[in-house]
Amino acid sequence: MQPLFDYLAANEQRHIAQLCDYVRFPSVSAQAAHAGDLKRCAEWLAGHCRGIGLEARLFPTKGNPILVARTPRPKAARKGRRHYIVYGHYDVQPPEPLDLWRTKPFEPTIVGRRLYGRGASDNKGQNFAHLKGVEAYLKTGTELPCDITFVIEGEEEVGSSSLAGFLKARRKELACDAVVISDTGIPSLRHPALTYGLRGIAALEVRVDGPSRDLHSGIYGGSLDNPAMVLSQILARMKDARGRVTIPGFYDDIAPLTAYERKQLARLPFDAAAYRKFLGVPALNGEKGFTPIEQRSARPTFEINGLTSGYQGQGSKTIVPAWASAKITLRLVPGQKPSKILRAAADWIRKVAPPTVKVTVDPGHSGDPYLVSPTGPLAQAGLRALEQAFGHAPFLMREGGSIPIVNDFKRILNADTLLLGLALPDDNLHSPNEKFDLDCFTRGTRMSALLWKELASGVTR
Amino acid sequence: MQPLFDYLAANEQRHIAQLCDYVRFPSVSAQAAHAGDLKRCAEWLAGHCRGIGLEARLFPTKGNPILVARTPRPKAARKGRRHYIVYGHYDVQPPEPLDLWRTKPFEPTIVGRRLYGRGASDNKGQNFAHLKGVEAYLKTGTELPCDITFVIEGEEEVGSSSLAGFLKARRKELACDAVVISDTGIPSLRHPALTYGLRGIAALEVRVDGPSRDLHSGIYGGSLDNPAMVLSQILARMKDARGRVTIPGFYDDIAPLTAYERKQLARLPFDAAAYRKFLGVPALNGEKGFTPIEQRSARPTFEINGLTSGYQGQGSKTIVPAWASAKITLRLVPGQKPSKILRAAADWIRKVAPPTVKVTVDPGHSGDPYLVSPTGPLAQAGLRALEQAFGHAPFLMREGGSIPIVNDFKRILNADTLLLGLALPDDNLHSPNEKFDLDCFTRGTRMSALLWKELASGVTR
Repeated sequence: MQPLFDYLAANEQRHIAQLCDYVRFPSVSAQAAHAGDLKRCAEWLAGHCRGIGLEARLFPTKGNPILVARTPRPKAARKGRRHYIVYGHYDVQPPEPLDLWRTKPFEPTIVGRRLYGRGASDNKGQNFAHLKGVEAYLKTGTELPCDITFVIEGEEEVGSSSLAGFLKARRKELACDAVVISDTGIPSLRHPALTYGLRGIAALEVRVDGPSRDLHSGIYGGSLDNPAMVLSQILARMKDARGRVTIPGFYDDIAPLTAYERKQLARLPFDAAAYRKFLGVPALNGEKGFTPIEQRSARPTFEINGLTSGYQGQGSKTIVPAWASAKITLRLVPGQKPSKILRAAADWIRKVAPPTVKVTVDPGHSGDPYLVSPTGPLAQAGLRALEQAFGHAPFLMREGGSIPIVNDFKRILNADTLLLGLALPDDNLHSPNEKFDLDCFTRGTRMSALLWKELASGVTR
Repeated sequence: MQPLFDYLAANEQRHIAQLCDYVRFPSVSAQAAHAGDLKRCAEWLAGHCRGIGLEARLFPTKGNPILVARTPRPKAARKGRRHYIVYGHYDVQPPEPLDLWRTKPFEPTIVGRRLYGRGASDNKGQNFAHLKGVEAYLKTGTELPCDITFVIEGEEEVGSSSLAGFLKARRKELACDAVVISDTGIPSLRHPALTYGLRGIAALEVRVDGPSRDLHSGIYGGSLDNPAMVLSQILARMKDARGRVTIPGFYDDIAPLTAYERKQLARLPFDAAAYRKFLGVPALNGEKGFTPIEQRSARPTFEINGLTSGYQGQGSKTIVPAWASAKITLRLVPGQKPSKILRAAADWIRKVAPPTVKVTVDPGHSGDPYLVSPTGPLAQAGLRALEQAFGHAPFLMREGGSIPIVNDFKRILNADTLLLGLALPDDNLHSPNEKFDLDCFTRGTRMSALLWKELASGVTR
């Protein structure tokens, strides 16, 4: 690997300058005015890939083009040679509110080892690190132990609406052994980490209808159930005193955290007092028997996202409101099936509801939880690459959020995903003053270079 | 009384035509454009009073003038001659939405025995009936057994903001034995009724603050309490399975319903199925051990008027909301003190709240409950007048709403109020197609004539 590392070290400044060129495109997918910038960014990226030695092509979509860039297939490639996809996105979040930025969002600015700019960390810097890791092979004439295809899209920040169709249409040429994504975070440079689990999600809306219109609370109040009270009573019954969700069967299918996983999660740096202060709450609270890290990443939740009923303006209005509603999302963990949970939740809500009102449960969007075995060969290869690149023993972690594209890759290509995030907690993703740590970038380029060797050697089919 | 009844019968058509003139004024106090109409209506009414033989005067206020019209005091009036106030209001609710009216709101239209027009029932027709009852004495030369002062204001529909100050300033000349108000309802022409009790009110707002801003429910959810869930849990604890409010001491000071009262309330016509259908609820429900009539008029309530938290738009937003709030009003019954109940409610809410959030309880407006002894001489005089005027045994009822001016009369003039409503349940008060039943009007004129005799003879000081 030394020639690769030497190449990366020798070309670091040039690579950083190229990353700045990449970040300079205001490729804001949420804003129609930037459609041209997205196209120019994709074309620049395709040209850059060709310059490295990749076979690059832009595929138009109803939205922004998808870049596909492959390593050239060696003439003497043996049958069964492995193929990995690196997924990333070149579109970025809107930069607003602009007045909170200390630098201009699309004028990349380096301060010490920090590169400031919208998209520097999410996700341009992270996918660019992989391009540079592969470039090291191609430019030093080192043989790649596998085929690699970059799939870099331009609609991630607006729901990746073209990606699944694209994967389906090109299912054959995109058939692969695994997908590698660097679009998550690590606790610090001294705590490189592999994210091996994601929570799923299931959304629903509960509506309680009482009287046919708002009623005078003086004239009628007392003789009928108040829909806002009934809704409160229903919601209160959804969790018990130990912080557990009461929906029958809710925990039945959950793959329990193994002793190994709990030990790994316990190794993650966590300061409860600092975390409490960061959230701004008087005290933390969650499911009894689990640590806050487990509660927020490896345990399911029942979360009310919004409540609506009756009068919400200034002062008071003396009514029994006609209806009340709650928006709810449940975060699910590996083993739980969103459709089954949604059914069980709806049944339970209807069961605890009194016959004095009409209760409607409306299921919404959902996404499966995701888990790659932390002890399997894929994860182990990632951990080895991380350790060598960062010079610290890596951590295993789960993230509490959901990354729907991971399920698309699984469903359409039957490919597992390795989540090797390079973002730091203070990277200000989706916020003003986004930055990418250049040490994360250089370690990321080395991690990528190492990864292909580790994947090709360590993973048995 | 026969000459009085003969006078009223002989002049019925003329009186109805005068009432139409009264209703024709668009005296909408909520709409600034009608300020001139209110003034003209008050002047017309003052002139009408003078024509009857009353000493009438308009008192300007910051809003609309208050009419004071007194019966002429006889030269030979003995010391201790009784004095009663008849309270009413000449302002009306806005007529909107206009497209739902079948007649023009300010073109009084008679269909059969119904007089359609905004304000016909609330309150012009009802206070006009008293004017005609007194007119019968004055025009037939029948000696009035007491002094009567009409106080008819023009701001009732916008909060009677000038009235309390006016009563205070003229406390001496308005000193009286009781106040008579016809501004409530009766079940039907065959069920004349005296309202002897009103509920009080106490408003409060509860706010639960959790994290310092809306949090990503995936990244953080599970490790902190959700303010919307905590609010639901607090609210759910405010009532028990028997529909009783759980605030400690809530029921302690309530004057229990006597066997006589319960028997009287049970005599009121009530069709539970029709009532349920009218409210539009699948089933009625209230405090166990009480009838719906008792629940809605003679028992206290804890009513949520509004709920607000997090995201309320279309679709979903995956957040742990920073805060949640509820608007609440409690209806109180005789014996309960709003200030004491508000303190107990705030203490209880803070006590059941977990230490994981910040809970704020904000007390709002309040009003005392009201009760006149249904067996006392004042009520009995009213019942006798009702029975003779309507030709049916009258009922005793309570109303669940609050009429703040009743407490003003008690507090400032130390006078009890006799509530002798003439409105029918289908009079469409505050709604399109308001009407007043002309049989209610003619019976009301007779009731008024009878009342002064019954009050003067029956009530001992």
